[in-house]
Amino acid sequence: MENLLSERILSTPPSFVRSILKTAADPEIISFAGGLPNPVSFPQEELLKSMKNIVDKFGSAVFQYSLTPGIPQLREYIANRYNKKFGLNLDYENILITTGSQQALDLISKVLLDKNDNVVVEKPSYLGAIQVFSQYQPKFHTVELTENGLNIEQLKEVLKNDIKLLYAIPEFQNPTGLTYSAENREEIFNVIKDKNMVLVEDDPYGELRFEGEHLPYIGAGKFKNSIVLGSFSKVVTPGMRTGYIICQNKELIKHISISKEASDLHTNVFAQYLIWDYLMNNDFDAHIAKIRKLYKEQAHAMLNAMDKYFPKNIKYTRPDGGMFLWVTLPEDISALELFPKALEKKVAFVPGDPFYINKKNVNTLRLNYTNADSKTIEEGIKRLGELLNAIPVKTLSRS
Amino acid sequence: MENLLSERILSTPPSFVRSILKTAADPEIISFAGGLPNPVSFPQEELLKSMKNIVDKFGSAVFQYSLTPGIPQLREYIANRYNKKFGLNLDYENILITTGSQQALDLISKVLLDKNDNVVVEKPSYLGAIQVFSQYQPKFHTVELTENGLNIEQLKEVLKNDIKLLYAIPEFQNPTGLTYSAENREEIFNVIKDKNMVLVEDDPYGELRFEGEHLPYIGAGKFKNSIVLGSFSKVVTPGMRTGYIICQNKELIKHISISKEASDLHTNVFAQYLIWDYLMNNDFDAHIAKIRKLYKEQAHAMLNAMDKYFPKNIKYTRPDGGMFLWVTLPEDISALELFPKALEKKVAFVPGDPFYINKKNVNTLRLNYTNADSKTIEEGIKRLGELLNAIPVKTLSRS
Repeated sequence: MENLLSERILSTPPSFVRSILKTAADPEIISFAGGLPNPVSFPQEELLKSMKNIVDKFGSAVFQYSLTPGIPQLREYIANRYNKKFGLNLDYENILITTGSQQALDLISKVLLDKNDNVVVEKPSYLGAIQVFSQYQPKFHTVELTENGLNIEQLKEVLKNDIKLLYAIPEFQNPTGLTYSAENREEIFNVIKDKNMVLVEDDPYGELRFEGEHLPYIGAGKFKNSIVLGSFSKVVTPGMRTGYIICQNKELIKHISISKEASDLHTNVFAQYLIWDYLMNNDFDAHIAKIRKLYKEQAHAMLNAMDKYFPKNIKYTRPDGGMFLWVTLPEDISALELFPKALEKKVAFVPGDPFYINKKNVNTLRLNYTNADSKTIEEGIKRLGELLNAIPVKTLSRS
Repeated sequence: MENLLSERILSTPPSFVRSILKTAADPEIISFAGGLPNPVSFPQEELLKSMKNIVDKFGSAVFQYSLTPGIPQLREYIANRYNKKFGLNLDYENILITTGSQQALDLISKVLLDKNDNVVVEKPSYLGAIQVFSQYQPKFHTVELTENGLNIEQLKEVLKNDIKLLYAIPEFQNPTGLTYSAENREEIFNVIKDKNMVLVEDDPYGELRFEGEHLPYIGAGKFKNSIVLGSFSKVVTPGMRTGYIICQNKELIKHISISKEASDLHTNVFAQYLIWDYLMNNDFDAHIAKIRKLYKEQAHAMLNAMDKYFPKNIKYTRPDGGMFLWVTLPEDISALELFPKALEKKVAFVPGDPFYINKKNVNTLRLNYTNADSKTIEEGIKRLGELLNAIPVKTLSRS
């Protein structure tokens, strides 16, 4: 078998999270490991109503083969929403519907990356992005993520290489929950503006802001090869796998469309009509407000519990939105080694390792707060706190 | 822009069919160009009922993230159906649900193909397969497709190369409508049985046999690295993009699953529950029988009209099932050059070129008979006949 497999697949890490999710499937375990939206964010009754609507109205068209870039109605809705919210100047041809944002990353990789091409990612970055880029065997460069965004000096340094792609998650980053400041975004733009490269701003959580004011994109509307990724996974339903690419450059989106066609012809067209009908016939912003309120409560429940139960020298981020926060343990503690001990206490998280390029036994870990109620969150954090407090003091005080 | 694009995308042909489909979108045009199933094959009312069922029964699970290889229920249904029909010995772990068969080809390519690896395809072959393989920059080898299947001498010859993948469509092949004979399948098996390679039998049309008896697979159940591709696109709904990989070798399917995870996490889970519920609560075989009957009528309408209106020296296949037939013009006629003239007469087909590796202005073309009623089919063939009869006799008589 081995000698039949491609180099690319042998260099692709299997998702650590998915193997953890299997371990954590025990219903007694309080899991902060996944990235599941709260089911309250799925407007089930309204979607069921829209299903009937679209079958009545469009008949067989919702079951038939369709256009590769997606149905024009939904693409137009998305273009208009971003124009209104972010002052962009998009039309439907700037939008391509994808089978979730994960596919968007795959298509962009296909269109841009030959083996050994240079890609820049945050340190740490979204593990699913590291996984998909790995399949195209690029050379990875990393730029440290600080409280305010990318480390600009490091960014300037890596841009001395011939970079094809800079991948960033400026809002409520996965895994850290950090948000780039307005100043940091401006600085990044100034550093890249004359470069012949593609900037991907992955923005699945942008609608989930529960603190502060919304911020402009780094490149959208001004950088020639700007791509923004969006998704209905966190605000309507992830099971329907409906994401989208917003791309300024119509030549680039044409190539992405060819790649899409070869990859799966088009995204589930029923799902596209369904989401479009839902958006047209319901108060989407009111629905989002409900999700925001819930996630704010849950994030606070987690932070309050951490303040109460965690030893004082353990650091963690305080996100303004999104689904995750990031814990930094004392330097000599491996989150990976802590993981089985946490499982014994029936609580799960994601050790930091898979969010880095080739780094092992790091002292960071990711917690998700969207998929458990506040009481359960407090109980889980309490258990983690007991575990952390049991680590010998001399180790803890060293950090 | 150009210098940002990958070699792979620059070597991927855009789908000719899709650009033709745009041209042929004029409602006055009788199009034999697409590969659309007849809407009668979509059980709309039953699907609508199943939608309500699954939301009632499974609630948020049908809208949430799910397992990469697909929901176990549907995979088990598929395993059982193939065990019963083909005497195979599959369990649900041999099945992986894909975002249509097109994605199956993409995932298999990802897992197997490095640049310059050797791939064997039929001559002619499915253009979507040529397109997806091209993205991985393999070295293509072709084996001529005859009335009975692959040319065995040519197959033996190309297998002297170090082949990773043999891609075949043994039933009602796309584009030709030809079916490999039982003897040919046996011969192919004997030629490949000791080779360390993967055999992909793409079988989206197998259920659509309207003449003759069903035949065993070439490799399924006996060849170690056998893959069979199936799909609900032609028998339930293509818009839902639900296909599957049947893979004997569990190590291979594990790698395909890692690749699937990086490509789109998982296939639309609502569609999976929906199709499973539909299959459990309806007489699927009766539904398929209805589609077969219709396609038989339509195929006969096309063949009868061709017998009546086409010049005698034009050859065409007589399919036992599926959706297409294949026309061979006199040797010096380019189907591509004929195409705009056909459009003037308001009739469309797919010229043969994109079904070959690097062949231009061939004298073959593909006709689809599933998406127009018998009367429209006769009218379209009559128009094509007028066009062909208008070609000067000396040219026609030369063949």
